[in-house]
Amino acid sequence: MEKLMKRSLGAKTLAQPAPLWIIGSYDEAGKPNAMAVAWGGICCSQPPCVAVSLREERHSYAAILNRRAFTISVPSARHAEQADYLGIASGKDGDKFAATGLTPVRSDVVDAPYVGEFPLILECTLLRTVSLGMHIQFVGQVVDVKADEDVLDASGYPDSAKVRPIIFTPVTRTYHTVGDYLGQAFQIGQVFAPKS
Amino acid sequence: MEKLMKRSLGAKTLAQPAPLWIIGSYDEAGKPNAMAVAWGGICCSQPPCVAVSLREERHSYAAILNRRAFTISVPSARHAEQADYLGIASGKDGDKFAATGLTPVRSDVVDAPYVGEFPLILECTLLRTVSLGMHIQFVGQVVDVKADEDVLDASGYPDSAKVRPIIFTPVTRTYHTVGDYLGQAFQIGQVFAPKS
Repeated sequence: MEKLMKRSLGAKTLAQPAPLWIIGSYDEAGKPNAMAVAWGGICCSQPPCVAVSLREERHSYAAILNRRAFTISVPSARHAEQADYLGIASGKDGDKFAATGLTPVRSDVVDAPYVGEFPLILECTLLRTVSLGMHIQFVGQVVDVKADEDVLDASGYPDSAKVRPIIFTPVTRTYHTVGDYLGQAFQIGQVFAPKS
Repeated sequence: MEKLMKRSLGAKTLAQPAPLWIIGSYDEAGKPNAMAVAWGGICCSQPPCVAVSLREERHSYAAILNRRAFTISVPSARHAEQADYLGIASGKDGDKFAATGLTPVRSDVVDAPYVGEFPLILECTLLRTVSLGMHIQFVGQVVDVKADEDVLDASGYPDSAKVRPIIFTPVTRTYHTVGDYLGQAFQIGQVFAPKS
């Protein structure tokens, strides 16, 4: 039986898919900083919250704690090189917006900047932090979401086939974008519902 | 300027991409249960941790608290209908494994079952819970990962082009799988590094 053939890979963060998100914050000098993270996800519907995890030595760490705010800018597949650079360089060493040609835009609702060229933005206030070990989780309450008009579907919400967000795969360290449409959630599984 | 044309969509959990994961647990009667979640992500490298969020009324909620363990089974694109059903029906009302023809397999390292047919499994002990509002976040420490041999790459780790995990998009409620390969993380961004 195929299911008995699974190989043990050890205690590793091998979950898939993981997002590639850009965290925007202002540092002590007021300089906008942007940092790539893949450890994160939505964590509550009401209040609407997202969580991202950072290491304490990151330049963004103190920045978010000081201003109690951050943004998540969702890069599109066409921004993969710029977004990757935001995970390679540190804001301690230079201006990553200038290096990549990206534009920091001041949020009108939270004290943090976002990446103007990226199609989908979540603007968050810091709700709480959770110390887990190497990483500290920052739970942000979503205050507003902003999106480019051209990624919205007919209902006015972001269509992932148009956003084309980037998927990071742990350990193999690859980026992919979204692919085939598989169906509507809470519908395609109805085929298994008991016949009444 | 295109970046000034963003539309405000309000305080909503519109982050992309979100995973479609199946949480496995044993209920009080010892019955294996499987439930679909999309609110979750990796949250710490050391110890390796993943977080998933559940509502208190879910059948899995008490089950995970009682046994202090759960699994994450990552469905492949070909399992989209089964996985979706695991988010439609409740284990309070019936045996979702039986309804979908999926096989509960007892983990050899934690007190929880996983879905035998799904290619990638994370086996977790409950490290802590974080009450956020409508959802409670369960932080699991990864004790082991198990994967089907045929989804591993040459280095022995899960290749997302072979796993083909399912991406859930909030509000539009669509499922997609992974698509085009975009490049290697921590490499493709080097094009923006200062010339030394």
